[in-house]
Amino acid sequence: MKLPQKIENAVIQVARLPGVGEKTALRQVLSILGWQRNEILELAKALADLRDINHCEQCGVYWETNLCEICANPHRAQSGSLCVVENIKDFMAIERSGQFKGLYHVLGGVLNPLMGIGPDQLNIQTLLGRIKNKHIQEVILAINPSIEGDATCSYLRDKISENVKVERIGFGIPIGGSLEYLDQRTISKALEFRRAF
Amino acid sequence: MKLPQKIENAVIQVARLPGVGEKTALRQVLSILGWQRNEILELAKALADLRDINHCEQCGVYWETNLCEICANPHRAQSGSLCVVENIKDFMAIERSGQFKGLYHVLGGVLNPLMGIGPDQLNIQTLLGRIKNKHIQEVILAINPSIEGDATCSYLRDKISENVKVERIGFGIPIGGSLEYLDQRTISKALEFRRAF
Repeated sequence: MKLPQKIENAVIQVARLPGVGEKTALRQVLSILGWQRNEILELAKALADLRDINHCEQCGVYWETNLCEICANPHRAQSGSLCVVENIKDFMAIERSGQFKGLYHVLGGVLNPLMGIGPDQLNIQTLLGRIKNKHIQEVILAINPSIEGDATCSYLRDKISENVKVERIGFGIPIGGSLEYLDQRTISKALEFRRAF
Repeated sequence: MKLPQKIENAVIQVARLPGVGEKTALRQVLSILGWQRNEILELAKALADLRDINHCEQCGVYWETNLCEICANPHRAQSGSLCVVENIKDFMAIERSGQFKGLYHVLGGVLNPLMGIGPDQLNIQTLLGRIKNKHIQEVILAINPSIEGDATCSYLRDKISENVKVERIGFGIPIGGSLEYLDQRTISKALEFRRAF
């Protein structure tokens, strides 16, 4: 006997989530079947509501309106500082640290010619426009270290006016890390990024 | 900055699924945000549809109507054989094997006085009723081996009429298993369950 079609459907849909295989999906669907009906509806509604989420038209962060809370905040814009990130998870990681009080810009990835990702596939034109129009004095490239990330940073440095200070976030030993277990490239970077003490 | 309320809601809801923490839920919600709107709706609808799933009023298996495909099938009932399982996952495991052609009965757990689960908390009265009314000649207890499972089997053996053959599924070395790695209790059971060859 096969399971009811509605259970099969739910399993197929849940299995589309990242990191969820068919067995996990089935386990989760069977667990949902044990919930109250209104609880099931709450879950379904919360997911359906995700259709209303837009990107902020300036920085590219997910937001319910056309302009996100950060871009709409005049104090943030006054700082004259713009932090460039690859994606929204990286934006969230920096925002969680509470250390940055300027504006953000989500690139949507890094340059990767082999994968067909050139400057036109990323939000680079809008970035250059914002730097000019918003009187940005300082651009922080919070791009992850990789061959593609490094190339993207070089490309952006070339395109951004020389009057604007361009910086890249620091690389080195993570807090709680131990030299013993870190790879050679991190240690090379940590030596390169050393500072007077 | 906090994320939009609708994203937070979706994360809270997804994190209620078994085995999903807040980080995984966030990763899954961000992935859903990259889907097409109609794909998001399909997922939400498939989950909302789970509200329509009922239990078969005879055996307790999930089904869309009051009577499941197995209980409604006269060939299944004619076999005179009834397989008792703890839960729907165990039912599915047996049904997948394709070896059993009779009826099922889902107990909903095993007796566990310490957790407050007595005979009245399980589907035992309906089981005894079915055995009588459906002219069941053979009951297979497909209850997992554990102290509570063993006690539940003894309890059921006492309650079921002596004219009905009651059997418990076999225990021993699983196919592909190796004596070297199996625990003492499995090996004791395998010796106990030996058979002329």
